[in-house]
Amino acid sequence: MQNPLILVTNDDGISSKGIRELIGIARSLGDVIVVAPDGPQSGKSHSITQEKVIQFRHIVSTQGYDEYACSGTPVDAVKIALHEICKTRKPDFVFSGINHGTNASVSVLYSGTMGAAIEGTINGMHSVGFSIDDYSDDAEFSHILPHIHDIAQEIVANGLPAGVSLNVNFPKACDKPLAGVKVVRGAKGNWIEQFYPANHPYGLKTFWMAGSFLNYEPDAEDTDLYVIKQNFGSIVPIHVDFNAYEHFAEIGKRF
Amino acid sequence: MQNPLILVTNDDGISSKGIRELIGIARSLGDVIVVAPDGPQSGKSHSITQEKVIQFRHIVSTQGYDEYACSGTPVDAVKIALHEICKTRKPDFVFSGINHGTNASVSVLYSGTMGAAIEGTINGMHSVGFSIDDYSDDAEFSHILPHIHDIAQEIVANGLPAGVSLNVNFPKACDKPLAGVKVVRGAKGNWIEQFYPANHPYGLKTFWMAGSFLNYEPDAEDTDLYVIKQNFGSIVPIHVDFNAYEHFAEIGKRF
Repeated sequence: MQNPLILVTNDDGISSKGIRELIGIARSLGDVIVVAPDGPQSGKSHSITQEKVIQFRHIVSTQGYDEYACSGTPVDAVKIALHEICKTRKPDFVFSGINHGTNASVSVLYSGTMGAAIEGTINGMHSVGFSIDDYSDDAEFSHILPHIHDIAQEIVANGLPAGVSLNVNFPKACDKPLAGVKVVRGAKGNWIEQFYPANHPYGLKTFWMAGSFLNYEPDAEDTDLYVIKQNFGSIVPIHVDFNAYEHFAEIGKRF
Repeated sequence: MQNPLILVTNDDGISSKGIRELIGIARSLGDVIVVAPDGPQSGKSHSITQEKVIQFRHIVSTQGYDEYACSGTPVDAVKIALHEICKTRKPDFVFSGINHGTNASVSVLYSGTMGAAIEGTINGMHSVGFSIDDYSDDAEFSHILPHIHDIAQEIVANGLPAGVSLNVNFPKACDKPLAGVKVVRGAKGNWIEQFYPANHPYGLKTFWMAGSFLNYEPDAEDTDLYVIKQNFGSIVPIHVDFNAYEHFAEIGKRF
């Protein structure tokens, strides 16, 4: 039987530590192709590049393993992998990450890591995004790698339902081993932005966007944020369906 | 009673024809503040700008009406409006568009127009995105402006349920007047990308992304794509909830 083909991508860029760790795991489970942004693409959500050209370059080639760096967003990377780089053999799986920073709760909406995973699912590939609640370039991954391996192996063996991706998040390394993983829902919450003046030399109004996260339901035990705080990894099965069916009847009467 | 404050934004940029038409309608319904991208931001989805500074400049000021152009994405524009420009008076409504190009079906996921509307909803503003199935810079809007006015007026009068935005799409102008508007669901479909070589002078692999749309259910009468084809405007109530609840039990057993 042919090895499965796993497309690995991320949003922190092809040279980040997180994708290096994920490539290692993917290579133990199948053939691997890496198509990842050539630089940081955090917060790019599901965006695509239309107003500029997209460029890619081939970096590494060994048997059953190629790497390409591409300009543009994580979703661009998945699209160009599917339609231009992998023309002769469609990937079976998309692994995105390991993201340096959490994508739990509402962050799934802003995340380029999860944008890539969702784009994989939309195009019929079994897709999962992995993230850790540690933003440093040199984040410690050793406590979660065996768990990511087990999750990835299970997905390679059994796939995922059509239309469903997994959003997997882990706590930062601490003095205890990871307590395990739990399948939960994404917590309700929101980012509250703050804009910090960037001190333009001629006084133009320039700002850095930053923010702090507000968890609307910190006591809800069935949520990703809750279990991560308890030192578990969280697995949230996600899908994309924007239709607000429960409001169709009422809004239908108004227009 | 104080006039409502309406934030107008878009993804085609502040100088596009579509936002000019929408500003006119908004000004007939309340006080208006415009904070819109300084150039084209189509396809930016829910992306935010973290790796660069965001700049804005004040363009127009008359009583109850100000315009600001901002660098960055449509979601950036909503965030900077809310947290930096409108510090003393929060907008009540967000009108996004009128987009030059359809955002029906799965395009809601890629759309900067709808990213801005959803961001408004997340932050407690009654928000709607308007789009027309006409990509030209000089798109004809006259057949839809009275309908947009009526929809906008109804929303200003009665608001929208918490967490719900409207995704409103219109057909291109034809030789008949618009047949009306219908509240429907977003059709299932997908963009099939093609990458066109951009002929780099030194042979680097550079491409333009383009694609064609595939409607998975062209005969479904309760979908936006179907009614638009029948010369109706489509109103899709949307919300953001990525949790794939129907798969929690099954996936919970696997991990």
